[in-house]
Amino acid sequence: MTSKPYVHGYSPRESVRLGDQARTLAELLHRDERFRAGSRVLETGCGTGAQTVILARNNPTVDFVSVDISQDSLNQARLAVKQAGLVNVRFEHADLFQLPFPPATFDAVFVCFVLEHLSDPLRALAELQRVLRPGGALTVIEGDHGSAYFHPDSILARKTIQCLVDLQHADGGDSLIGRRLYPLLHRAGLIEIEVAPRVVYADPSRPEMVDGFTRSTFIAMVEGVGEKAVRAGMMDSTSWRQGIEDLRATAGPEGIFNYTFFKARARKSA
Amino acid sequence: MTSKPYVHGYSPRESVRLGDQARTLAELLHRDERFRAGSRVLETGCGTGAQTVILARNNPTVDFVSVDISQDSLNQARLAVKQAGLVNVRFEHADLFQLPFPPATFDAVFVCFVLEHLSDPLRALAELQRVLRPGGALTVIEGDHGSAYFHPDSILARKTIQCLVDLQHADGGDSLIGRRLYPLLHRAGLIEIEVAPRVVYADPSRPEMVDGFTRSTFIAMVEGVGEKAVRAGMMDSTSWRQGIEDLRATAGPEGIFNYTFFKARARKSA
Repeated sequence: MTSKPYVHGYSPRESVRLGDQARTLAELLHRDERFRAGSRVLETGCGTGAQTVILARNNPTVDFVSVDISQDSLNQARLAVKQAGLVNVRFEHADLFQLPFPPATFDAVFVCFVLEHLSDPLRALAELQRVLRPGGALTVIEGDHGSAYFHPDSILARKTIQCLVDLQHADGGDSLIGRRLYPLLHRAGLIEIEVAPRVVYADPSRPEMVDGFTRSTFIAMVEGVGEKAVRAGMMDSTSWRQGIEDLRATAGPEGIFNYTFFKARARKSA
Repeated sequence: MTSKPYVHGYSPRESVRLGDQARTLAELLHRDERFRAGSRVLETGCGTGAQTVILARNNPTVDFVSVDISQDSLNQARLAVKQAGLVNVRFEHADLFQLPFPPATFDAVFVCFVLEHLSDPLRALAELQRVLRPGGALTVIEGDHGSAYFHPDSILARKTIQCLVDLQHADGGDSLIGRRLYPLLHRAGLIEIEVAPRVVYADPSRPEMVDGFTRSTFIAMVEGVGEKAVRAGMMDSTSWRQGIEDLRATAGPEGIFNYTFFKARARKSA
């Protein structure tokens, strides 16, 4: 949902990763997302539809309009929704900063993993509020890569994560945005702001989280920027490989991994 | 519960802090602690009784034996329990490593903020298992100072926390123990291990957490090692003061603070 390329993007491998991520995190992040019956909800950006399917299935009486800036993603999202047999989603190609809707079109707006990529999240929040009716609800979900810690601890593993943070920063994004959702929404003029951390904790007693989150989501995401990080001279390739190996040990028989997402709910003032 | 002095200890100010901490955290950490009716539970170490009162009140049919290595703390704990009108706690002066009880004395053992101070937590867990009956339940709660992050972020604020971690490490403790409770209990031979993170998240919409946790518990704890850290040359006094000021900003109108405790439940094999 930005004109700049994402740090983590749209390659086939990325699509698989985003699919894995959405499935594993669905229960944690979206299971309690319920919109008022009959309401009109904007989802932005829907990406390849991984979360669209969950939202639409759990809210069958809600009319969703799901937008994204990537036509390819929209095509995949359309397919995913169709395959799930859902009929309550309309897709539109749109830029988050210039939404093709009149003011106060929606009862609620849902934004997940979008603001982290934007150099001006406040401008995005202003546009989202424009299309939200007075008193309407905004849900924002973002991660925070600075919340990641693990055992066994490793300086090189931490450095690989820092590369991801720095690359996203260089692209104008902020992968530490989760922790500042409250001040951000407050500055944007929203009211009744409630932020709650959603922790993903994986140890050997939770193999589905170790595999679904630690390995297939987080480590895969870090690995995805390896070439770029080494090419940019952020780490040499030997250190990088060791860092990734150390990260993998956190998914091993003595490892643990902890990461926190932040889910914010707020209202547009009436 | 160790023969070495604690990094954070027993001064009057510390007692106030520990009282504040226990009250604020009580809801989060102990509200769901329920032992089987009529069971015999060992609490070690009880310190000044802040959590003893909560446990004993919520489990009126349980017989608690609460031990600590400090007579002063035990006296305060006795008073606290008496003032709360509770009669189901017996206090004993004891060393965690040489408990004055025969094998299999207790149905459950409760340990909170103790293992972090020990240079050999596995030896402590062996002694706790000795006094636990086969199939008995062990609850362990520990923090993890490496889980602390905040907004606005600040390198100096992070350094003040690192001083606390390093000082505790120099004393043989591990203030990052929370994340490794699972592997620790596993190595100790316990079974049915379940570890759950308990997050304290404080932003301006939660003034009681900002005051009770961020200010009165966490920042007060870090401030408590200021002299020692500066004297040891870990930070110069100007940087220290700035670091503390930066930490205080996380309790300000645009600040957030996040910290994770880990609560583990496990069983002694039958």
